[in-house]
Amino acid sequence: MAGTLYGIGLGPGDPELITLKAARLIASCPVIAYPALAGRESLARSIAAGLIAPGAREIAMEVPMTPERAPAQAAYDAGAHRIAAALDAGDDVACLCEGDPFFYGSFMYLHARLAPRFTCEIVPGVTSLNACAALARLPLAARNERITILPGPLPRAELESRIEGAETVAIMKVGRHLAKIRDVVDGLGLLERAVYVERASLPQERVMPLRDAPDPAPYFSMILLAKGADPWL
Amino acid sequence: MAGTLYGIGLGPGDPELITLKAARLIASCPVIAYPALAGRESLARSIAAGLIAPGAREIAMEVPMTPERAPAQAAYDAGAHRIAAALDAGDDVACLCEGDPFFYGSFMYLHARLAPRFTCEIVPGVTSLNACAALARLPLAARNERITILPGPLPRAELESRIEGAETVAIMKVGRHLAKIRDVVDGLGLLERAVYVERASLPQERVMPLRDAPDPAPYFSMILLAKGADPWL
Ligand SMILES: C[S@@+](CC[C@H](N)C(=O)[O-])C[C@H]1O[C@@H](n2cnc3c(N)ncnc32)[C@H](O)[C@@H]1O
Ligand SMILES: C[S@@+](CC[C@H](N)C(=O)[O-])C[C@H]1O[C@@H](n2cnc3c(N)ncnc32)[C@H](O)[C@@H]1O
Repeated sequence: MAGTLYGIGLGPGDPELITLKAARLIASCPVIAYPALAGRESLARSIAAGLIAPGAREIAMEVPMTPERAPAQAAYDAGAHRIAAALDAGDDVACLCEGDPFFYGSFMYLHARLAPRFTCEIVPGVTSLNACAALARLPLAARNERITILPGPLPRAELESRIEGAETVAIMKVGRHLAKIRDVVDGLGLLERAVYVERASLPQERVMPLRDAPDPAPYFSMILLAKGADPWL
Repeated sequence: MAGTLYGIGLGPGDPELITLKAARLIASCPVIAYPALAGRESLARSIAAGLIAPGAREIAMEVPMTPERAPAQAAYDAGAHRIAAALDAGDDVACLCEGDPFFYGSFMYLHARLAPRFTCEIVPGVTSLNACAALARLPLAARNERITILPGPLPRAELESRIEGAETVAIMKVGRHLAKIRDVVDGLGLLERAVYVERASLPQERVMPLRDAPDPAPYFSMILLAKGADPWL
């Protein structure tokens, strides 16, 4: 019988923000798969490191971060192929994913390739959005408020129109887009309430006004714009 | 010295989706506070029940669900008062919150009242949104896709215009608004891809096309509309 594929959300970085279910599955799976940015240590693996069973087999997928999609697609094809071999041999595979697997997570590319053939379970995780809001002490939404989540690489005009009509906004994937985003937020008269959060829940975490944020920002950073009502109400 | 207030996200319902950090804090706090809908068992308390230390003192806050805000505000005022007394006496207080505390969570009302006076830490949790996406096997967003989160009680015209311009949409707080929401989604030609999810991660969880969803829906239900690109890509 083929093994089960688990897509496991690890939370935003602090190993204590792993769920009890994720911890149990990581410790018990004989095969652990994870993405790694070419040449760097895998954040996903480092979050889960203390839980991986001694002797577990590891499948590291080197995913290139290029503007074209073909190289990443080829990496996911190759990773899915190796994972499928382990599942076919009857082993359960825990696929590690920073944050939540289906929230801008790499696991969805493996899910698309493997879920049609294998039993698959998704274990949701704490997202970076919730960790950033907790660190910044910014309630995201109450009652009938709306939340809009935007990726920083979106074109300037689209960022502008999306932020303008929104209440609470979170902008992910800031990195080298910081200057563009800051400019858009400033142009909309919202700079004073924009908060920049970096590496939430990790030892180097920090929060500051967007006005003071580093340019370029690191990859693990986010901008929060809370325009909602007073949560006192 | 005054105690610390912890706002603790419990995840969407399965006690195994509690984080290691939340589990540690719940087990070690001498005082446990939680909201309860008047007359019903508290879902938050039932999720955490197995972790609460024998002998812990409990502060149950009966929050009325009325259209006017004044009765709920009075309940949070009274709850904050009792929690403040425990903190002033030097006890740490774990305030339990279903899902994530700052994602449409009741904790933000206590936070607004107590954070100015006491040391306070927010422990983020797995949201119902991520649990619903996992159960429905619907990736929420990849790459440069946007996510819009809307509360079901919004007026029909606003739901319509917000859904129309969006990619992935999640509609929370469905309940007695189901018929209105279904009508709006149908009018936009999106009924075929709308998924209804109920009590994700709880024993009675279920997923079905919005077309078949019960009217009225239970309180713990959500509608997901994934219009994003093919995650294979
Ligand atoms: C590919 S997405 C992965 C998101 C992840 N699946 C989740 O659920 O949070 C990467 C983006 O998430 C955000 N991010 C992830 N971890 C973060 C952290 N610890 N602090 C701040 N932002 C973070 C950043 O915006 C980063 O560019
Ligand atoms: C007041 S909000 C609380 C949200 C919570 N703080 C969170 O992070 O998920 C209540 C709404 O969350 C959604 N919800 C909460 N738990 C759910 C579950 N297990 N399954 C489906 N929807 C859920 C429903 O839309 C419900 O009306």
